[in-house]
Amino acid sequence: MNVLISCAGRQAGLVRMFQAALDGRGEVIATDADPLSAAFCLADRSFVAPPIAHETYLDWVVELCRANDVGLALSLFEADTRRLESVRRTLEQAGCRLIGAPPEIIDQTEDKVRTRDLADDIGVAYPGTWTLREVLEGAALPAGPFVVKQRGGRGSRGLAMAGSREEVTTLAQQSSEADNWIAQVRLVGEEFGLDVVNDLRSRYRGSYQRRKLRLESGEAQVAVSASEEVLLELAPRIAERTNHQGCLNVDLMLVDGAPTLLEVNARFGGDYAFSHAAGANLPALLVAWAIGEPIQEAWLHSRPGVTSLRTSSVLPLAAAPGSWKPGA
Amino acid sequence: MNVLISCAGRQAGLVRMFQAALDGRGEVIATDADPLSAAFCLADRSFVAPPIAHETYLDWVVELCRANDVGLALSLFEADTRRLESVRRTLEQAGCRLIGAPPEIIDQTEDKVRTRDLADDIGVAYPGTWTLREVLEGAALPAGPFVVKQRGGRGSRGLAMAGSREEVTTLAQQSSEADNWIAQVRLVGEEFGLDVVNDLRSRYRGSYQRRKLRLESGEAQVAVSASEEVLLELAPRIAERTNHQGCLNVDLMLVDGAPTLLEVNARFGGDYAFSHAAGANLPALLVAWAIGEPIQEAWLHSRPGVTSLRTSSVLPLAAAPGSWKPGA
Repeated sequence: MNVLISCAGRQAGLVRMFQAALDGRGEVIATDADPLSAAFCLADRSFVAPPIAHETYLDWVVELCRANDVGLALSLFEADTRRLESVRRTLEQAGCRLIGAPPEIIDQTEDKVRTRDLADDIGVAYPGTWTLREVLEGAALPAGPFVVKQRGGRGSRGLAMAGSREEVTTLAQQSSEADNWIAQVRLVGEEFGLDVVNDLRSRYRGSYQRRKLRLESGEAQVAVSASEEVLLELAPRIAERTNHQGCLNVDLMLVDGAPTLLEVNARFGGDYAFSHAAGANLPALLVAWAIGEPIQEAWLHSRPGVTSLRTSSVLPLAAAPGSWKPGA
Repeated sequence: MNVLISCAGRQAGLVRMFQAALDGRGEVIATDADPLSAAFCLADRSFVAPPIAHETYLDWVVELCRANDVGLALSLFEADTRRLESVRRTLEQAGCRLIGAPPEIIDQTEDKVRTRDLADDIGVAYPGTWTLREVLEGAALPAGPFVVKQRGGRGSRGLAMAGSREEVTTLAQQSSEADNWIAQVRLVGEEFGLDVVNDLRSRYRGSYQRRKLRLESGEAQVAVSASEEVLLELAPRIAERTNHQGCLNVDLMLVDGAPTLLEVNARFGGDYAFSHAAGANLPALLVAWAIGEPIQEAWLHSRPGVTSLRTSSVLPLAAAPGSWKPGA
């Protein structure tokens, strides 16, 4: 059985983790539309993909999974996961399990206004959020401070700082896309990453958490594995609502000990690696569930108190990635 | 013999390269004022250093080198190298070779106005550069485009884009530090990194070069090892002038095939890793020269045409770094 990492991008580390999890029982296949993706440096097979929005894309993926004995597929880009959900049945008939989530959940996580509904359903706080359109129409905003960001942006993309209610109003008046930008109350607290782990039948199995000590451009540079009771209790409530398969990555802020949801992503998050460095092993769990083998209980846990740091390295691209042609 | 990497910061990769070069014959010691430095995750011994400007700093380093059998010392921060040069003799008497350069050369490389003199001495082009003070005083600027940056800044720090001569003039009028900012003609061409390799007696031994294909925040994300005749010819001319020990990292632009110097750093550059991935081995050369062993000719060369990509990984901090106390 082989594993497909779609939109693998720079995540060479995740390729290595899945190779270790497979331990010779299969290969890791990386695909990305960008031929200069760092994941290609380590993947056993690499293919340059069509753009995910292209009309041929889904057929291309299904055919690739069939021809390459892919038993487990996941994407590192949520819009891709959303598309792959539409061929979940086809993939399963070909023996390929998809890590994903119900499309309506992904739609909620991709829209920072609708994420509020998801938070309400889970029963967790969400920061006050208004579209700039609502601001223009006179919504009653608190004093601030606010952060202004794209309604569908990821991480720190499309982020504009705006301190006060007055500055938000000025920005709203200047905006030509008032429906696609939001103003969100900026909280002060401790930022956490939480992975909610379901098995491939969407049954809750556990969670990993880490406190982010340093962030740069929205990416954790330093984090320490944690074990906050309030997050241990929250994780199964999230899982019950999201009903996802595999991994759901959640950003939270603890304000005076109480959790506020910041962002949900139905995929591996970039900061999972901090839990992996502390003993978690989600790739091993997913591979075992896909193959139908017993898991090791230890994979479900990370040791709290392990501080880890992000570093960069440079990998040679041993061979140019292939161009997969269906039916070839 | 042990190797000291001072101001090691995030460069865990360089720690690993020196460990491989030592191959069990010694250990890599990393120091940094920041206790959360990724280099500490891999170093054999780690110490939190006093700030390099602190009055105790130089005594601290010398004592650390003596007590830890350091035979080779290098810094990844140029202002640190500049300070260490003032104790070069003391370090040598303690059996420790310092990778560095004559102080007057470091002073030239740290000042983007004076780097022009260095370029003139070498006989290589340098982009038109004016302090904002000179702009205010009516210097005859070309039409542009320009980039405005800190006179002593590293990489992309303190970088402000300014398109035209008029915009530069406006910025200069607004600046409260017109002597510490420069306007530099922005060139369009292919950007290269070049390492000029001297041995520890400042004799030129070779060079490595790579073409930068993608840059982010001034850091190469993708590069391909190269072998441009014009740079092969330039490297010994740089070495003759700089008279450095070990490694000098040079940023250049090839405009219609002719080189223009952008920046010189008397230290390992972040993009050396791209040449290392293509077969270069500067750490092995430096260790061999420090020990007095023969080198392998292959270490002096990188295979041209190897494309490499930067990726990130997360490393656990196995133990907290120590606090070295002289005389302890």
